[in-house]
Amino acid sequence: MTSSANDCYRSRFDAVERIVPRQDPVVYASRPARPPMSEPRILDYGDNGFVLLENLFSAREVACFQEEAQRLWDDAELGDREEAIIEPDSRTLRSLFDVPRFSPVFDRLARDARLVEWARYLLDDEVYLHQSRLNYKPGFEGREFYWHSDFETWHVEDGMPRMRALSISIALDTNRASNGPVMLVPGSHYHFISCAGETPEEHYKKSLRRQEYGVPSQAGLKQLTQGNEIAVITGGAGSALLFDCNTMHGSAGNITPYSRTNLFFVYNAMNNQLQAPFSGQKPRPEYIARRADITALQPVSYREEDYLVRAQYL
Amino acid sequence: MTSSANDCYRSRFDAVERIVPRQDPVVYASRPARPPMSEPRILDYGDNGFVLLENLFSAREVACFQEEAQRLWDDAELGDREEAIIEPDSRTLRSLFDVPRFSPVFDRLARDARLVEWARYLLDDEVYLHQSRLNYKPGFEGREFYWHSDFETWHVEDGMPRMRALSISIALDTNRASNGPVMLVPGSHYHFISCAGETPEEHYKKSLRRQEYGVPSQAGLKQLTQGNEIAVITGGAGSALLFDCNTMHGSAGNITPYSRTNLFFVYNAMNNQLQAPFSGQKPRPEYIARRADITALQPVSYREEDYLVRAQYL
Repeated sequence: MTSSANDCYRSRFDAVERIVPRQDPVVYASRPARPPMSEPRILDYGDNGFVLLENLFSAREVACFQEEAQRLWDDAELGDREEAIIEPDSRTLRSLFDVPRFSPVFDRLARDARLVEWARYLLDDEVYLHQSRLNYKPGFEGREFYWHSDFETWHVEDGMPRMRALSISIALDTNRASNGPVMLVPGSHYHFISCAGETPEEHYKKSLRRQEYGVPSQAGLKQLTQGNEIAVITGGAGSALLFDCNTMHGSAGNITPYSRTNLFFVYNAMNNQLQAPFSGQKPRPEYIARRADITALQPVSYREEDYLVRAQYL
Repeated sequence: MTSSANDCYRSRFDAVERIVPRQDPVVYASRPARPPMSEPRILDYGDNGFVLLENLFSAREVACFQEEAQRLWDDAELGDREEAIIEPDSRTLRSLFDVPRFSPVFDRLARDARLVEWARYLLDDEVYLHQSRLNYKPGFEGREFYWHSDFETWHVEDGMPRMRALSISIALDTNRASNGPVMLVPGSHYHFISCAGETPEEHYKKSLRRQEYGVPSQAGLKQLTQGNEIAVITGGAGSALLFDCNTMHGSAGNITPYSRTNLFFVYNAMNNQLQAPFSGQKPRPEYIARRADITALQPVSYREEDYLVRAQYL
């Protein structure tokens, strides 16, 4: 069990919730590094804990990604795998983890310089893929994701030591105000909510469907949103949302006919590799949180043509 | 039991859903009548089936309405009344029906010329209050309302003969993209979805919490939204949304800390008073659908001061 003395983000150890300041930088880059994008966007990311990059991928690339997401959705064999998370009520596929394992197209995308360069710059380190998931939010029945900081879970349940990771969510459908888009609390990444309660054994088996532990209280959420209007992220397919590992976010359900499928890649700094979980419990599986066979991703400058090769089963 | 020969909007009589054209006007006003608002807004209402009137009420009036809504929310005795509809899971108050009965402020508001003149103009008749409800959508736990046409229910379960009624929803809180705002399908009011299935006895006791009958199919909703981007209605407190009785609408849940309380008044034309329910079943209670003691509302030109009188229990 990891000593709590080394743990600057203790959570789920007490009956009382606490809000403590972030101990880590948000933008790690040292000045001489050449940023992959304009200064204002980097400042936005620093201040808000997220930034939206519109049209990062072309319409033809997006069409290819959509086709690949549909192929995975249609793959009956995947439904029985543990990487496939099913909606509690409707038995619909909610998420598919470890996406590059099942898709050569998305394996390529995870290494795309347009993503990896951002991660390397902001984290000022070589990076690896800590987690990846395809979140299907189908029309009419897509369920809500309640508010959470990814880092809280990654720290407590996976042993990620510091806040030096970020997520990139690539919109495979238009994210509209109506179809349950991602919502974030600007500035929330500067505060760590140390949640009340403990972590049950094998919590992940339930929490990926509906989380009950590591959930911030209503009072805590009110405090985070004080003076920070919640941002609703709308954007076309092919846009990418970068957000810090500790930015509080969630999304409402989707009752519209418009599906809302997003692909998430989580990049972690090589210097921030997982330790033993801070809960003292056994680690979650590799497909949720990579701890073995870590290799730094080399960014590849893929072009449109590189994605138009027909996907094949690995 | 009403003969189906007289019923131009039959619904819930067959295993198959049908979409049939509207048989009635949307804007009933004959040209010589003096409209209460500009021509473009009336055209919008006609084309889309709804129109948003921003800042219809002043900030001081809104403050008075909010205080009154809070007083009703806090009134423990109301919670046990049948007019108070409770959320199925959390036991939270979801809606309060027959609002003017419990509130002299809202009784006044229901007669306010700013509302009644619109209704009289658009329906080209004297009007009465068919239904009223205060919809509380509290922060964090406000539940979704799935897609529905009010008219379908009012016709089948209440015996409203024709499409000659409209709702006015007054925002008592800011309606944001994030906190489960009303969503409508523009143009949907021109089509009547004759729903599959039947109506169970005393359906309203469940349907006001979660509707299971008279619900349009996913295929039907897809057809209505074809070429009509769903409108998400955001606006400040004090804005009013007018929408036709047959406009398809719904709303997602509210996971934000921002409450979203709206007050609904439904005005029906005096010439469109209720008959026996077209389901052949016994009518729903008076607090849901007024059929006795119908009197035409006389519009009163209330001013700000008229609302600032402290509310008293009736």
